Amino acid sequence: MTPLDETISAIRPADQDAMARAREHQDRLTKPRGALGALEDVAVRLAGAAGVCPPPMPVPAALAIFAADHGVHAQGVSPWPQEVTTQMVANFLAGGAVANAFAASAGASVTVVDVGVAADLPAAPGLRAHKIAYGTADLSAGPAMTTEQAAAALRVGVEVAGELIEAGARCLITGDMGIANTTASAALICAYTGRDAAEVTGRGTGIDDATHQHKIGIVRRALEVNRLRAADGFTPERPEDALRALAAVGGLEHAAIAGFILGAAAARVPVILDGVIAGSAALAAVALAPAVAGYCVAGHRSAEPGHAATLDHLGLRPLVDLELRLGEGTGGLLAHPIVSAAVRVMHEVATFDSAGVTEKEG
Amino acid sequence: MTPLDETISAIRPADQDAMARAREHQDRLTKPRGALGALEDVAVRLAGAAGVCPPPMPVPAALAIFAADHGVHAQGVSPWPQEVTTQMVANFLAGGAVANAFAASAGASVTVVDVGVAADLPAAPGLRAHKIAYGTADLSAGPAMTTEQAAAALRVGVEVAGELIEAGARCLITGDMGIANTTASAALICAYTGRDAAEVTGRGTGIDDATHQHKIGIVRRALEVNRLRAADGFTPERPEDALRALAAVGGLEHAAIAGFILGAAAARVPVILDGVIAGSAALAAVALAPAVAGYCVAGHRSAEPGHAATLDHLGLRPLVDLELRLGEGTGGLLAHPIVSAAVRVMHEVATFDSAGVTEKEG
Repeated sequence: MTPLDETISAIRPADQDAMARAREHQDRLTKPRGALGALEDVAVRLAGAAGVCPPPMPVPAALAIFAADHGVHAQGVSPWPQEVTTQMVANFLAGGAVANAFAASAGASVTVVDVGVAADLPAAPGLRAHKIAYGTADLSAGPAMTTEQAAAALRVGVEVAGELIEAGARCLITGDMGIANTTASAALICAYTGRDAAEVTGRGTGIDDATHQHKIGIVRRALEVNRLRAADGFTPERPEDALRALAAVGGLEHAAIAGFILGAAAARVPVILDGVIAGSAALAAVALAPAVAGYCVAGHRSAEPGHAATLDHLGLRPLVDLELRLGEGTGGLLAHPIVSAAVRVMHEVATFDSAGVTEKEG
Repeated sequence: MTPLDETISAIRPADQDAMARAREHQDRLTKPRGALGALEDVAVRLAGAAGVCPPPMPVPAALAIFAADHGVHAQGVSPWPQEVTTQMVANFLAGGAVANAFAASAGASVTVVDVGVAADLPAAPGLRAHKIAYGTADLSAGPAMTTEQAAAALRVGVEVAGELIEAGARCLITGDMGIANTTASAALICAYTGRDAAEVTGRGTGIDDATHQHKIGIVRRALEVNRLRAADGFTPERPEDALRALAAVGGLEHAAIAGFILGAAAARVPVILDGVIAGSAALAAVALAPAVAGYCVAGHRSAEPGHAATLDHLGLRPLVDLELRLGEGTGGLLAHPIVSAAVRVMHEVATFDSAGVTEKEG
């Protein structure tokens, strides 16, 4: 077995018994039944992930920002120069990005992983050098990666997840940086959900109508060139097809995030997904190991149209819905205090019996 | 001038210049323009409230839970016995309620204010005794309070806000406890927004269809009996009518929360509103002093139908929308880390110039 096979075979389904106990416990707490809405589901989900009730507090949290470049950038799908990926890595390492501010708010550590930036990056504290390539190839002209490269990036994600958990993290948060990576995300979403390119391709960090139409065309061509349509016999539920799609139209950061999710699930640690990049990576992870869905929490709903389709497919409800479209892990970080509060309720809130509060009539 | 008049006359409109500078600053930060969505508006709003850019961090936060009982409870509008108000006050003081767990998560202090509980409460650390009456009269049979009682409750709220700010709070969060208080809230919302009772009266913490219809009828009767319809010549924009409506169909906790909001605004400190109880109290505060709207942040959208109408009327967008229907301040507390993160961005995130990041083309 390869290290990836070992990780996948270690992933257990969410613990139904712990989930049932979490639901019962919620109903005994001094609040009307169901009054915490979606937060009750979060606590139940985390009990299922951990296999105990109440689930452990999801602290400390650790954010990993996987950075990589994209060959498809040459097609003019983004108004941002490719070197912004490298510049933003430096900004993360200097503590100057929004993700750093949000991580400080959430008490989360920040780890930056070069899994495929198209430049040599100087060594720096907080930067992990795991470059697999200087960016991917152009997904609209053929496979963005070989399956070996995709598997290597998956293993990087598994390894980073394992190291952060080993160092004490009890909740992982996905982050990403890669100019043009919403194009790869849209292609992945089409491949794994069968949706049309026009439906899921968005404006990323800001493009005009003409560029948007061009971007839709690029996504469509990527699916054709790489034979990722049902008409091509492509079946994303087959693990070999799942991996082939990830390699063909994903980014190195998508593959690494998919591995990060697999690594969290294998260790029974919850992972908060950021936006559309993380969501499309989660589609790959779920295609490789369906049980990982039980370990994922959707941090937020991105403004990208493909994200709603992704969350539908994953069966996840986002906790924050504030039209963020930044990536970096910002939506996941914003959701962390909500996840934490949901779990804290399970540990600290009194029951009707213990507090001497009368239950409602009827 | 009465103390209330002094408070109202101290409230200044939000500072447009500070808001403009906050918008400009957002556009220089290392992120695509507008990429933080609704969080950018929050930071701008807090700059307007404080009158400086960047606005001060909204920490520490202080939650005040105003507790009171309602004469309308006798009409069978709630399945919960009235003594639950008293029991929950004890639960808050013992630290066993959901609000306590969420406050611990947000690092917020918890103050419980007896402004009208229908029982004598033993003195306890953390409990402020400001009882104005042993609950209100039945709002469906006549005025729930005299205008003197409503004004006294308003002054309690102003005083508590002032004391918490004096003690160092830089963000106030509204909380409430009062069995049957969603009935009073629905009546207030009808009075201040002109909506119909059937449109805004919800199921509170859980009632069946028959009780729901009965509750709608009670709200409708309250508006008739107290002559709070446009056809009666009632004009909520007139301060004397605004106060009369609050007294006629509000609760003592609604009046105190309205005062709490006025007190925060007078001190230029932002206040995070919890759900439908706080929203209906904010309608009263805004009717008394329109500029207070600029100091309010909507913490969450409650599952109560009247809350959406209230937020529309106040022009506020809720930050959390997770079907909570608990009150106590829980929705406001959940939103606090989001507000805090939005402001932190203004203090800590690098600009394109300072970080050497290239801006997008075009």
